Amino acid sequence: MAAPVPTSVRGRGRPGYDLESLLAVAVEVFNERGYDGTSMEDLSRRLGIAKSAIYHHVAGKQELLALALDRALAGLAEAVSATRAQDGPAIDRLEHLVRQSVEVLIDRLPYVTLLLRVRGNTEVERAALARRRSFDRFVADLVREAEREGSIRPDVDPAITARLLFGMVNSLVEWIRPDRRAVGQLTESVCAVAFDGLRRE
Amino acid sequence: MAAPVPTSVRGRGRPGYDLESLLAVAVEVFNERGYDGTSMEDLSRRLGIAKSAIYHHVAGKQELLALALDRALAGLAEAVSATRAQDGPAIDRLEHLVRQSVEVLIDRLPYVTLLLRVRGNTEVERAALARRRSFDRFVADLVREAEREGSIRPDVDPAITARLLFGMVNSLVEWIRPDRRAVGQLTESVCAVAFDGLRRE
Repeated sequence: MAAPVPTSVRGRGRPGYDLESLLAVAVEVFNERGYDGTSMEDLSRRLGIAKSAIYHHVAGKQELLALALDRALAGLAEAVSATRAQDGPAIDRLEHLVRQSVEVLIDRLPYVTLLLRVRGNTEVERAALARRRSFDRFVADLVREAEREGSIRPDVDPAITARLLFGMVNSLVEWIRPDRRAVGQLTESVCAVAFDGLRRE
Repeated sequence: MAAPVPTSVRGRGRPGYDLESLLAVAVEVFNERGYDGTSMEDLSRRLGIAKSAIYHHVAGKQELLALALDRALAGLAEAVSATRAQDGPAIDRLEHLVRQSVEVLIDRLPYVTLLLRVRGNTEVERAALARRRSFDRFVADLVREAEREGSIRPDVDPAITARLLFGMVNSLVEWIRPDRRAVGQLTESVCAVAFDGLRRE
């Protein structure tokens, strides 16, 4: 796949990147070849610029990874904050969180894809996994609260329910195409399948 | 993590492997480092045997991948055959397939994990993806049939429902530990969360 060089610089012979567009290409390469399997040489080739031009923006591959993972994690953190700001029954707040998370996932698809593939091989990855775990705990607490309120089936362990719910949400990265028109419908589908199984009727 | 050298050969200085135990270690390394990021050198180091000893069993890395992916795909194919042999409403056959698939996933965890990470970079991987797609079509057809029979909610597209359902099932590879005692309970949880959302009540 060709690098998404900004139209304004196409054909000038030497494309220019700001940090954001450089990051977008780097994440694309990380997702294709795996972070461990990507060298600065690979990035330089795909970007069509010298390694020194990359070092003008970042200290190295690890910083690109940290910035990319933060794009995803900051989105999820905003979803958590927005959910904390909500009132009402826990099950409604949980549904709010699911909707927000699906939006973040679609909106920042390559970044969330990268995040979900992180295995903890480096310090940056372990820090990202710690932030993911804190998100997971927030979800599990909401499920537990909804269970206490009697709106979620009590026969499944809250931690497992939370994992299955976000297992379904996260699986979207495997097949969705970021076609913005379909986002609303997809969110409805996820909530329909997930919550009619969670709500006590 | 140390290679799971068979107890019988521990301490003999040069561990011996049959194809099955060699494959188990190779899959472990593929899952840790990614298939593309793993060299025959890496495998030889982890196994503690010379590359020539690996070539005694297989023609190369690609054959190890093919054998490993087949472990997972053959399991899923058996689940499909067992489901085809069932009578009764489509929703019950779908639930049967989910239960069988969860069992395969837990029973062959490292192999299924590897399969789910395949991106189609080689001929072997593309063949595996084609077999996965045929599994997905079988699931979507069952969902469609159950919808026609009136037992599954008609407001979600069958292909999307199938993907969300198996998105949830497949997400298990991210967190379960192959503790066989918990398999039954886990399968119940998956079916409870998934099917109470699918069944029309």
